[in-house]
Amino acid sequence: MRARIDGIVHDIKAVWFENGKVMMIDQRELPAKVVLVGFDDYLDVAEAIRNMTTRGAPSIGATAAYAMCLAALKGCDIQKAAKDVKAARPTANDLFYAVDYMCDRLSKGEDPVKAADGYAQMMIDKCTLIGEYGSALIKDGMKVMTHCNAGALATVDVGTALAPMRKAWAQGKRFFVYASETRPRLQGMQLTAWELNQEGIDHAIIPDGASAYYMSKGVDLIITGADRIAANGDFANKIGTFDKAIVAKHFGIPFYVAAPISTFDFSTATGEGIVIEQRAEEEVTMIGDRRIAPVGSKALNPAFDVTPAELVTGFITEKGILKPDEISKVRR
Amino acid sequence: MRARIDGIVHDIKAVWFENGKVMMIDQRELPAKVVLVGFDDYLDVAEAIRNMTTRGAPSIGATAAYAMCLAALKGCDIQKAAKDVKAARPTANDLFYAVDYMCDRLSKGEDPVKAADGYAQMMIDKCTLIGEYGSALIKDGMKVMTHCNAGALATVDVGTALAPMRKAWAQGKRFFVYASETRPRLQGMQLTAWELNQEGIDHAIIPDGASAYYMSKGVDLIITGADRIAANGDFANKIGTFDKAIVAKHFGIPFYVAAPISTFDFSTATGEGIVIEQRAEEEVTMIGDRRIAPVGSKALNPAFDVTPAELVTGFITEKGILKPDEISKVRR
Repeated sequence: MRARIDGIVHDIKAVWFENGKVMMIDQRELPAKVVLVGFDDYLDVAEAIRNMTTRGAPSIGATAAYAMCLAALKGCDIQKAAKDVKAARPTANDLFYAVDYMCDRLSKGEDPVKAADGYAQMMIDKCTLIGEYGSALIKDGMKVMTHCNAGALATVDVGTALAPMRKAWAQGKRFFVYASETRPRLQGMQLTAWELNQEGIDHAIIPDGASAYYMSKGVDLIITGADRIAANGDFANKIGTFDKAIVAKHFGIPFYVAAPISTFDFSTATGEGIVIEQRAEEEVTMIGDRRIAPVGSKALNPAFDVTPAELVTGFITEKGILKPDEISKVRR
Repeated sequence: MRARIDGIVHDIKAVWFENGKVMMIDQRELPAKVVLVGFDDYLDVAEAIRNMTTRGAPSIGATAAYAMCLAALKGCDIQKAAKDVKAARPTANDLFYAVDYMCDRLSKGEDPVKAADGYAQMMIDKCTLIGEYGSALIKDGMKVMTHCNAGALATVDVGTALAPMRKAWAQGKRFFVYASETRPRLQGMQLTAWELNQEGIDHAIIPDGASAYYMSKGVDLIITGADRIAANGDFANKIGTFDKAIVAKHFGIPFYVAAPISTFDFSTATGEGIVIEQRAEEEVTMIGDRRIAPVGSKALNPAFDVTPAELVTGFITEKGILKPDEISKVRR
């Protein structure tokens, strides 16, 4: 992804391995500044997943792979490390998948760095293909809406939901993106808008509640990411996705979900089997150290919602665009 | 409304007249603290409207009536005072209505305090009736959702959307309220939750994007206020109302709008005739003096959206609950 650091445009990834350290963009510092952090202890990397220094299911997966890489390089107990890393966040399937992937590779004697780099590159390659398939949906002059951040920051590089936009823009198509701010953590405002801005793609931030207003005035296409997709096509994604999918259906607007096949969890039959992480209410009631809610009022903060497959027009994957009833074709 | 000040529970209004002063709750200080301010110069009262010390169309109307009362008591030029007070905010119809109301009463020789108190009491009486009609919709054990603040702070006392909840709670019914935080200005979090907390009504603040999540798990009733209702029942209210109404329809949840008859604008045939105020993007991109959005990213900030009448189950008014096709019955 393009990132301007100290006035110079770099092409960097969300997470990578360099000089014995797992390096990552501290996404909590965006959009004010691009801060790079490095860790050489796998527990610190697991903590970086937990505290959202890095976030987004595929980036979490790659980060987990690098955490396992560190554990292997330092001769730690791989089974204990796998348990520690998997415990960092409860919802992202990629986290579990990446840890299992690494355990398998390490058990076969593969070089830890090569295995983790391979996992990260695999993600980038998939996103590139998602961008190629998805860009065909974007036409000149369209208005596109997205939610949260399913960009390069969330996927090591390129992005899932943002991949078709990056690719279409590179193809010379000109369109406009509504980036829904995504309370409480504002990943739409602070990460998606930051990425679009770095790439020079026309966009505006909107409050989450302005979706129906803009859809009623003409949105042509909605693309979001997914954190986990059940075997029937029900999918978990950032809270607010379900609202947008319902509103899109009301207006007859195509609603696409961009995700690699690894986000499909065929062991979960339907969305009812997806456990939703309930996060701390302070993410809603506080801004930094300042309480903005009344003392005595609680807040509820589900991190994700589950959108039923019937509201999905298609899944943009590295194997092409699939309708919900075509998911079984790619079953691993 | 109940308001705890220095540990003691008071029963106060959003604005009132006492010992020669117009007193009001400084709503800019909520929810952190309840600060009462008093003014004995009508120009200071006009400034309090302008700088949003008091807000909410009916409260603005009553405050303007009290400003005119002060002008009369001090022997100021009433025509000049009317012009000064009307200039405080550009769009609030209640402001102009209240000033004209006072000019009429003062020209007939009515006591200024009695006239302004009468104006404020008229609003409270309407809200009390809205509460009585609306409370019948709330049953024990229900989950109720609201958006923005249509409470006592906005209407001198009692509220519109919150009136049925206050009344039902006073009747001994026990239910739970989801207060949608209402970005960008967070009136749901900072004012509605504050009022519910003061009244001891069970509630939680939710991000605006968590509406579908909670509706899918069981919300029994949604009640919002309205800023303006067209003759066909299309209504303007705080941005995000339209999204909730669509999601409510998807789940078959009753969606009610609480407003006095004075909010119906029979000169506007449909919602298409309602002009939406576009507010400064800094309300979205800044928290206080701090920019939270990427430099270079714009934000769009429509203050209201227009929900079509077909999504409204009923309008809770001081003349009873009306279905959208019954509005013409109360045409003035």
